[in-house]
Amino acid sequence: MQLQSHVYGSWVSGRGEAAVLRDATTGALIAEASSQGVDFARVLTHAREVGGPALRELTFHQRASLLKALAKMLGEHKEEFYALSTATGATRADSWVDIDGGLGTLFAYASKGTRELPNQRVYIDGSPEVISKTGSFVGQHICVPLEGVAVHINAFNFPVWGMLEKLAPTLLAGVPAVVKPASSTSYLTHAVFRRIIESKILPPGAIQLVCGGLGDLFDHLCCQDVVSFTGSASTALKLKSHPVINAQSVRFIAETDSINSSLLGSDVTPDMPEFDLFVREVAREMISKAGQKCTAIRKAIVPAARAGEVIEALRNRLAQVVVGNPALEQVRMGPLASLAQRKEILERVQALRAEADLVAGDPAQFKLEGASADLGAFVPPLLLHCRDPLAARAVHSTEAFGPVCTVLPYASLDEAIALARRGEGSLAGSVFSADDELTARLALGLAPFHGRLVLINRDCARESTGHGSPLPHLVHGGPGRAGGGEEMGGIRGVMHYMQRTALQGSPQTISRIISRWMRGAAQLDPGVHPFRKPFHELRIGDTFKSGFREVTLDDIERFAALTGDTFYAHMNEELAARNPFFGARVAHGYFLISAAAGLFVDPDWGPVLANYGIDNLRFVKPVKAGDRIAVRLTAKHKTLRADKGYGEVAWDTEITNQAGETVATYDVLTMVSEAANPG
Amino acid sequence: MQLQSHVYGSWVSGRGEAAVLRDATTGALIAEASSQGVDFARVLTHAREVGGPALRELTFHQRASLLKALAKMLGEHKEEFYALSTATGATRADSWVDIDGGLGTLFAYASKGTRELPNQRVYIDGSPEVISKTGSFVGQHICVPLEGVAVHINAFNFPVWGMLEKLAPTLLAGVPAVVKPASSTSYLTHAVFRRIIESKILPPGAIQLVCGGLGDLFDHLCCQDVVSFTGSASTALKLKSHPVINAQSVRFIAETDSINSSLLGSDVTPDMPEFDLFVREVAREMISKAGQKCTAIRKAIVPAARAGEVIEALRNRLAQVVVGNPALEQVRMGPLASLAQRKEILERVQALRAEADLVAGDPAQFKLEGASADLGAFVPPLLLHCRDPLAARAVHSTEAFGPVCTVLPYASLDEAIALARRGEGSLAGSVFSADDELTARLALGLAPFHGRLVLINRDCARESTGHGSPLPHLVHGGPGRAGGGEEMGGIRGVMHYMQRTALQGSPQTISRIISRWMRGAAQLDPGVHPFRKPFHELRIGDTFKSGFREVTLDDIERFAALTGDTFYAHMNEELAARNPFFGARVAHGYFLISAAAGLFVDPDWGPVLANYGIDNLRFVKPVKAGDRIAVRLTAKHKTLRADKGYGEVAWDTEITNQAGETVATYDVLTMVSEAANPG
Repeated sequence: MQLQSHVYGSWVSGRGEAAVLRDATTGALIAEASSQGVDFARVLTHAREVGGPALRELTFHQRASLLKALAKMLGEHKEEFYALSTATGATRADSWVDIDGGLGTLFAYASKGTRELPNQRVYIDGSPEVISKTGSFVGQHICVPLEGVAVHINAFNFPVWGMLEKLAPTLLAGVPAVVKPASSTSYLTHAVFRRIIESKILPPGAIQLVCGGLGDLFDHLCCQDVVSFTGSASTALKLKSHPVINAQSVRFIAETDSINSSLLGSDVTPDMPEFDLFVREVAREMISKAGQKCTAIRKAIVPAARAGEVIEALRNRLAQVVVGNPALEQVRMGPLASLAQRKEILERVQALRAEADLVAGDPAQFKLEGASADLGAFVPPLLLHCRDPLAARAVHSTEAFGPVCTVLPYASLDEAIALARRGEGSLAGSVFSADDELTARLALGLAPFHGRLVLINRDCARESTGHGSPLPHLVHGGPGRAGGGEEMGGIRGVMHYMQRTALQGSPQTISRIISRWMRGAAQLDPGVHPFRKPFHELRIGDTFKSGFREVTLDDIERFAALTGDTFYAHMNEELAARNPFFGARVAHGYFLISAAAGLFVDPDWGPVLANYGIDNLRFVKPVKAGDRIAVRLTAKHKTLRADKGYGEVAWDTEITNQAGETVATYDVLTMVSEAANPG
Repeated sequence: MQLQSHVYGSWVSGRGEAAVLRDATTGALIAEASSQGVDFARVLTHAREVGGPALRELTFHQRASLLKALAKMLGEHKEEFYALSTATGATRADSWVDIDGGLGTLFAYASKGTRELPNQRVYIDGSPEVISKTGSFVGQHICVPLEGVAVHINAFNFPVWGMLEKLAPTLLAGVPAVVKPASSTSYLTHAVFRRIIESKILPPGAIQLVCGGLGDLFDHLCCQDVVSFTGSASTALKLKSHPVINAQSVRFIAETDSINSSLLGSDVTPDMPEFDLFVREVAREMISKAGQKCTAIRKAIVPAARAGEVIEALRNRLAQVVVGNPALEQVRMGPLASLAQRKEILERVQALRAEADLVAGDPAQFKLEGASADLGAFVPPLLLHCRDPLAARAVHSTEAFGPVCTVLPYASLDEAIALARRGEGSLAGSVFSADDELTARLALGLAPFHGRLVLINRDCARESTGHGSPLPHLVHGGPGRAGGGEEMGGIRGVMHYMQRTALQGSPQTISRIISRWMRGAAQLDPGVHPFRKPFHELRIGDTFKSGFREVTLDDIERFAALTGDTFYAHMNEELAARNPFFGARVAHGYFLISAAAGLFVDPDWGPVLANYGIDNLRFVKPVKAGDRIAVRLTAKHKTLRADKGYGEVAWDTEITNQAGETVATYDVLTMVSEAANPG
């Protein structure tokens, strides 16, 4: 099978010598891949001129719905992907992380896109900034899609998740992508990609696939493009150093292998659940994906007094691991992705053994189930023990990207932190302890050097997603050796593909651009009470202004009696006078917003279905008996839930007193029907 | 005068050959600068081991107060800086931008630090992430100070502001800095720095100054360090390409010169105020700092039909500009910073003239007031006109860093946008138009290529801060040629010096780390009603749980009568039944939170001074007559305002019904006194 690339709208075969891709267990030929002959300048132009404009036409919610549709469609073909995945050396459990993990990431981004992004094309970043005295000139940050291409260079270990976790935030941002999977497992990426293309869910040009090298693509990058790379630090360094990357300030997000640590707290004794949780997690991280995870635990940092017990427990646990053909149900760990990987890992283990003893597993002799050690890229779980980790160098800098972990004893918490930091920047770390004080100290010591920290005790272990699992909600990436990049992290990951721009101008001009009313922008006359307008008729800026209502002492007394809120500032003139904020008996804040609702509400049946909440309520000035209040309500922003027949409308609300002073400001949140008569 | 460096706690003189710094107007020798002999590895170690720990001991608010103290102290020495500033070629107005602009930036960061950051050491980034079914395992992003050094490499044009705009967010983050001013104007930076050191406001090691080159400093950088560079694109490229920067993933923030555009809308005719505003702004940007601003307008993009009128108006305006000795009151524009700058700029103007006509000013012949053209680095304002800007290349890529601007005619809005984009990434752009629709179209067309856009019309012009002024509130930086970095932008700029880390664990463990209660964390028994506890006695997690109160139809009727809120869902059984959210008459949401206050309030005089607001109120489940409600109130986070004798306490609040279902959730915001009896 010759893997084709999908570029400029069609499937294209590469010319010349191709990379040969083999089954990790049997060595059987699976496919060949070459991208020679692909016109990479044209790939970028196609994305910029066809895919980009089509994606930018859509709102964030529409893009989110594409992700959901993709996830559902791919879910229907899951078994096809699982079958292919076995050839990469993955067990069913390994494939679950890759395949279902990938689909879950699409679902999570679809959900976050709908809940956390507006149903429009411009992202509003933060609140308006006050940069003038009277407010006629304001600042507002926005984010818009970059008008270039996202080039995704993926690693071999997660051929499905690796593609989808980068595609989800990119497409949500409205940016087209070129996907370049690592060759050795690209046949699986290719199969998933083919299903996406066949489904026609995405607009033409939104994604392209390159099976093989990227040729001269980097020479054609510009300031609107983004490169997102996952792989080895050495490849990242080479790519980042490309002259065009620096000269054009091309964004470069790198997520590279790192030396990750798991720490056992000094409070934990072998009879505590945390001891067992730690041992299980270290063992699991060693054998999951045969240790081929950039987040896997490479250093198990344990109290010196516990090193022997930890090693013993791990040795017992690892001895039960069945290694062999990943297609067999009883097999817990399959081969590495390729014989080349095996060779490299065994060399690195050799380097580690210069300063650490091998205490479990023997690469020269181990049992294999249903597979041949000559044909498949097998390595058994290998545990090492470094007795003097402060003096050691290799254990802190050499990553054996397989089922390999080293136990490092520590004498004090500061030493434990120092040992973890010796990794010089890691993707993930973990702490196992029952003592929150100790965990907090370790976590804050590790934080500057880590992108993610998992803190496990008996209370959260059952629901823990584990040390090595990046989640779409949380940033994935780390400083230093881990590449200095960040992926995912919910909407944070979307922003990598957008340009943040500070706008300055009149509130009216900026309101027009961001489709959100702000103080100082025009207050429009809606013609009728705005609560009578269905969702689509309501304009941003439509304003209702009430008449005045006097607040009497009787109101205050009746409100106190009805609600039971007899706080002295409302009830006792003498005490209220002593209060630094009031100086006299004042109306309840809750009464003011309730009376304001009485002033603004249009009581009859109509398109406004419910007031579902309030945001940012601030009481600015107290109201005393005899004061009069009025309220202004202005349609601030709208979010249509098209499938529900209604949308959310937030109203900028301001209560003022008879002197025109602001009494309270807040946003009233309502559900407004698309129908004038929703019944 | 030999400028000393201030390194490892003392003033150190450089050895060997020094850079010679001269008065821009007279050529008189002012100072010499050399950093030869400085031990740069020791500079970094001093910052990391002395300055960093001292800054990290402080909370954000304490660091903010240092910035305020610095600004006040420097304000007392302002005239000394103004006097020195004249030697750089700056007029009084130019110096105001640099000196008062710098102090304003310190004040703005002090204020933002106090208002927008917590009074603690860990920054809480975003809301908790739901990553488990029952909520026993949650995610939370935090930011902690990087434990390295910020290396600030500044440009010659703003020797004071340039230093302070980088120092403010860095120190607020808790990170020590090494300041390296551009040599030619470093004597002014040095004078300000000396005052800072003498004041002893900052802890030892918090800042160091290098007058002269940075030697081998880059060789010693690591993953905890940040380089923030302002200057030419070519120097940025050289520095970014240093092998250690890439290999260690050292953060590199670059803000480089860019080709910035100002656009005149096609709606604007010469009789409109926007025409005049445009002409004034283009002229001002040309002569302010003699055009030596990375944000200055280099391309004035105007409707082809208006090009003649714009040129005529600009020519008239520029003819009135008095060029000469900046110490003289009548002088509007001083010299460039150095003769070397003059030489370079004149060469670039020559290059521009290959595709544009010089239409105002003559570098070979112009009037000078109180200065000699032989001694000072003078260039008059030079206006060019490029008749075929789509075909031109130099006007889009050659920056003459002086009082030089080119007028570019456009035929359509798309062409105007295309011409601005040809800058391939700019710091700042501006649009002058009275038509918001047109402005919006231009702004969204420019946004992907710009870090900041100023949108001017008659409504905001009076308060506008201008095209070329970066503000501490707004991001300063831009994509591509502008360096791809971001500075300032309020708290965004602080985050460049912090590491974001995703924490995962039990709510209780994470609450402990971030000093903020979250759902699922322990609810503590406060012993007494928590409203009786003064600020410092109150613990995060202290919880009050009320008894139940029945909500009756009479309550609903009385509340409606008292407030005037007679919305049908509360008053009319039949209509309420048709509402998709209610299904029956329901209590007012406002009544529920009012009754909840009645349930939780402790009415007597005590440390709780006021309820100043509510955040994130969501009504989750309606309450019908006969339902019973109870409320839980848990101390969520505390922010001490030490100088005021009280602090803000937010309470996580949840109303539940008789079935234990959540009715409403919100944060109640209170002011709590440090005194048990605040009277």
